[in-house]
Amino acid sequence: MIKEAIFHRPKNNYAYAYDNDTLHIMLQTKKDDMYSVELLFGDPYDWVDGSWQTITKPMTKSGSTSLYDYWVIAVKPEFHRMRYGFKCSDSNETLYYMEGGFFTSAPTDIANYFCFPYVNNIDVFQAPAWVKDTVWYQIFPERFGNGDPSINPEGTLPWGSTDPTPSNFFGGDFQGVINHLDHLEELGISGIYFTPIFKAYSNHKYDTIDYMEIDPQFGDKETFRRLVQACHKRGIRVMLDAVFNHSGYYFPPFQDVLTQQEESKYTNWFHLWNFPVVTEPRPNYDTFGFVPSMPKLDTENPQVKAYLLDVARYWVEEFDIDGWRLDVANEVDHAFWREFRKAVKSVKPDAYILGEIWHDSMPWLQGDQFDAVMNYPFTNSAIDFLAKDCISAQDFADSIVKVLHMYPKNVNEVAFNLLDSHDTPRILTLANGNRDRVKLLYLFQLSFIGSPCIYYGDEIGMDGGQDPGCRSCMEWDEKKQDRDLFEYVRSLLKWRRTEPVFGNHADIRFIDVNNEKNYIIYEKFNQDTCLRFIINNSLNPVEVSSDALNMATIQEWDIESDQKKEFTLGSTIHVSPLSFRIFELS
Amino acid sequence: MIKEAIFHRPKNNYAYAYDNDTLHIMLQTKKDDMYSVELLFGDPYDWVDGSWQTITKPMTKSGSTSLYDYWVIAVKPEFHRMRYGFKCSDSNETLYYMEGGFFTSAPTDIANYFCFPYVNNIDVFQAPAWVKDTVWYQIFPERFGNGDPSINPEGTLPWGSTDPTPSNFFGGDFQGVINHLDHLEELGISGIYFTPIFKAYSNHKYDTIDYMEIDPQFGDKETFRRLVQACHKRGIRVMLDAVFNHSGYYFPPFQDVLTQQEESKYTNWFHLWNFPVVTEPRPNYDTFGFVPSMPKLDTENPQVKAYLLDVARYWVEEFDIDGWRLDVANEVDHAFWREFRKAVKSVKPDAYILGEIWHDSMPWLQGDQFDAVMNYPFTNSAIDFLAKDCISAQDFADSIVKVLHMYPKNVNEVAFNLLDSHDTPRILTLANGNRDRVKLLYLFQLSFIGSPCIYYGDEIGMDGGQDPGCRSCMEWDEKKQDRDLFEYVRSLLKWRRTEPVFGNHADIRFIDVNNEKNYIIYEKFNQDTCLRFIINNSLNPVEVSSDALNMATIQEWDIESDQKKEFTLGSTIHVSPLSFRIFELS
Repeated sequence: MIKEAIFHRPKNNYAYAYDNDTLHIMLQTKKDDMYSVELLFGDPYDWVDGSWQTITKPMTKSGSTSLYDYWVIAVKPEFHRMRYGFKCSDSNETLYYMEGGFFTSAPTDIANYFCFPYVNNIDVFQAPAWVKDTVWYQIFPERFGNGDPSINPEGTLPWGSTDPTPSNFFGGDFQGVINHLDHLEELGISGIYFTPIFKAYSNHKYDTIDYMEIDPQFGDKETFRRLVQACHKRGIRVMLDAVFNHSGYYFPPFQDVLTQQEESKYTNWFHLWNFPVVTEPRPNYDTFGFVPSMPKLDTENPQVKAYLLDVARYWVEEFDIDGWRLDVANEVDHAFWREFRKAVKSVKPDAYILGEIWHDSMPWLQGDQFDAVMNYPFTNSAIDFLAKDCISAQDFADSIVKVLHMYPKNVNEVAFNLLDSHDTPRILTLANGNRDRVKLLYLFQLSFIGSPCIYYGDEIGMDGGQDPGCRSCMEWDEKKQDRDLFEYVRSLLKWRRTEPVFGNHADIRFIDVNNEKNYIIYEKFNQDTCLRFIINNSLNPVEVSSDALNMATIQEWDIESDQKKEFTLGSTIHVSPLSFRIFELS
Repeated sequence: MIKEAIFHRPKNNYAYAYDNDTLHIMLQTKKDDMYSVELLFGDPYDWVDGSWQTITKPMTKSGSTSLYDYWVIAVKPEFHRMRYGFKCSDSNETLYYMEGGFFTSAPTDIANYFCFPYVNNIDVFQAPAWVKDTVWYQIFPERFGNGDPSINPEGTLPWGSTDPTPSNFFGGDFQGVINHLDHLEELGISGIYFTPIFKAYSNHKYDTIDYMEIDPQFGDKETFRRLVQACHKRGIRVMLDAVFNHSGYYFPPFQDVLTQQEESKYTNWFHLWNFPVVTEPRPNYDTFGFVPSMPKLDTENPQVKAYLLDVARYWVEEFDIDGWRLDVANEVDHAFWREFRKAVKSVKPDAYILGEIWHDSMPWLQGDQFDAVMNYPFTNSAIDFLAKDCISAQDFADSIVKVLHMYPKNVNEVAFNLLDSHDTPRILTLANGNRDRVKLLYLFQLSFIGSPCIYYGDEIGMDGGQDPGCRSCMEWDEKKQDRDLFEYVRSLLKWRRTEPVFGNHADIRFIDVNNEKNYIIYEKFNQDTCLRFIINNSLNPVEVSSDALNMATIQEWDIESDQKKEFTLGSTIHVSPLSFRIFELS
């Protein structure tokens, strides 16, 4: 037994409350090292005649990578508390793995066991229920629709007349979004994530001037109120972007510092190193990255905190928005986000709080800060395999299994799963223009656990490279839209909406991965149904052994024709190049 | 290379801010698997001509167990942010271990690296500076000194006239403590931890009736104020015990529930399952353990929270106490403790918050909840080896190295290191009456990293088994006290106070452990000095090879005679049975 590879530690993805009654416990072991793992557990106070009362239950292998097996179990301790350890067996020996180390028999001293002391409801990670069934659509407001030319900013160019640059404007606005809600409703999305809409200098608006005002190029507060109401009427939630890590250069408090210097009453709103404060040749204050025009806000300062929390509450209370996406969330202090959560949930308990974090985010997902993060580990894996074909099927499966086991299940169920955004090239460009690859990406994204997001225009086949290329004007000329792709995405969204096992109400696991032929088979399953997906990621057709579907009754799901049909199993299953098939087993 | 054994994950003991400028990074690998580990790191925004700027620095092996090596490094990233990974080399290969997995060369995509996004000062774990140099003395007030017989509770027995029982009283009180402060000052302790003093039913007072009142058997508020002032005058801090997980049976709100039932306005102060609320045959409400007389408080209820936070502030503000020890801290919600910390620190920023947790406590020691926990893993290891001699020297060293690496260094420096308490047998009893073993325990405890605590009476050789045996009346008859032991402890405390390297201003590591001869050699070192301790834990004398001290100049420290003396190194060093020697190298 490779003892050194065995890992468990509460409280995080390895041990957490899934709900107020249920604990999920996970053990990581070296791949194929154990033939069984059991959980040995009991109530810490349940003693009879001096001996501690425990029971043992088998754990299930929920996934494997090339390095690790993951063993899981769900238990419901009657009194909401539990001491526990793991009984690990390979072909040679059985060892008990505990907080106190390894034992050849179950230790009698309870101090050696791991402890989940008590499930207090307030500490349980709990995201809004609606997120689990939401599909997002990301809109970069300057580029979605120009519905009111009267508020075009100076120098606005004709819609789509030229390529986007870091500084040009096309006049996208709220009325433009309102005008095109039919498109979104037809597609079938149920939430819009808007990049920043507050008064700012640039076309992307990440350089805020006034967090309490709408940028006049987008409309006024009344237009925004109408927009939110129109969305809600169609069952579409609205999430805004909060840029609280830093302000823009023209944020009045920063301007005050630049002009008043030591005399400014805003000197403690930023992280100033010395005076005079200068922006050149290098800023002598903390910035986002090394960008002088984005001074980092001091979110530990009670005044700054009060101001930003006011902002957080204001847009929820006054305009009924449904969520906040938090820009550069990882660089702001945890203490601030804890207060932010309380402030936002106090005015709308089921608001969604989504952090922009590109790396392992467990410290922010403990229930006290965010409901979710932007799931870039998912993004990177999907793009590398299905768009770029630059990693093997096994590496792809490994990375997805790793993503699924790095967070609690209730976290994964509301993860914000994007394929691209205003910060990356578009998927069609990442896939080198291959629309079959885009279809595979959407299939995988929309059949995966989490809350997926579609970047505006991707669904009609827009392309574009790294920012600013990915920020082109939305193509509204149907003749120039890829309507076939649109219908395909629409169909996937419908399946996701109507078939719980296709969407977010099932577990997922890999059944087979084949590096040589470059295909994967994964399964979505719940207590009612089991779906098997075969994705052929190669340029050649593959014949997959029908062992993968060896069950009594089989139906094939046809996404494009939107039907289920009977399927008679032969010895192999043919899958065309860059294509997929879906089978429902029963 | 055993890749499966390599572990790192921020933010916890593996990656944390030691202070506002310094990050500590740790990697765990299989013992003896690597010959070097280096940290590869850079500022995430420091790019020149499209390539990310990194540097590489060697990490140090700070300790090993039978299973693992621990590699550490301290770095000070100029802009308080860092992406990083590990360059691991064994004799066959070099691999880069990153958040994204293993790579044969340093990946160019920064997304693969681990991330410490930003050191925000407010998130840095920061315990009060004074704790690092504090030695605690635990007093069970009913049994330390009876200074005012006029307030003896009914049925008080003559002091020490009989063995303690779960329900008898001897009249210990505050005046008794005041009368004996000379003893404590002479011993050299610098903090007193009082088990509960609030109005309660039992002799141990863990069944609170009124959190705002002193139990009348101990005195009144004025006596308590005098006690705190008298302690402070002698440089002794005062810590009280907060029993916030549950109330006592006679707590008026609980009595109100029992009598008024559904009509009570306190029904939401507890976790009631249904009505009528009954205590027998089994309570139908949450309790501490299964004790019907200790109903669990609902600390999520804003009224309960407000009441308990008032209590927390009141005793600090009104009586200037210096810390709170939190009973059954692990069963109360994290959300409550976060507010508790804010409340206490708002009235005394350098108050010490100590949680009673017997198991791995990392989730409570992130800077937002406790300053320390009662270090029972340390306790258990020290007792098993030095008192009971029931584990090997290697197992002892393993467990201590594990304790040192399971928390950040700034956490270890203020850990509450006890050997016994009112909840365990006394050390002399655990050592089966062997006072030489007690001396070894004190040597190890008082030369270790952390904030040690002496249980009242241990220092003069009192014995006693599991509660109530360990709660005897303090022995004040000097003829019945072990004065030699007292002098020994006094001397150790003086060395700890006067020699930074002996106490809490040095690192510790094991130099040699010998299972066969049953001795250990450990080192305390800082930039100025290096001490080597040889502890012979066997009943036989040992001859230790002088290689262990192979350095130019050596002085021996003699604790009993309170002197340093020149030492000339021979080929071996003789250490008597159950004895020790200390050498200063330079």
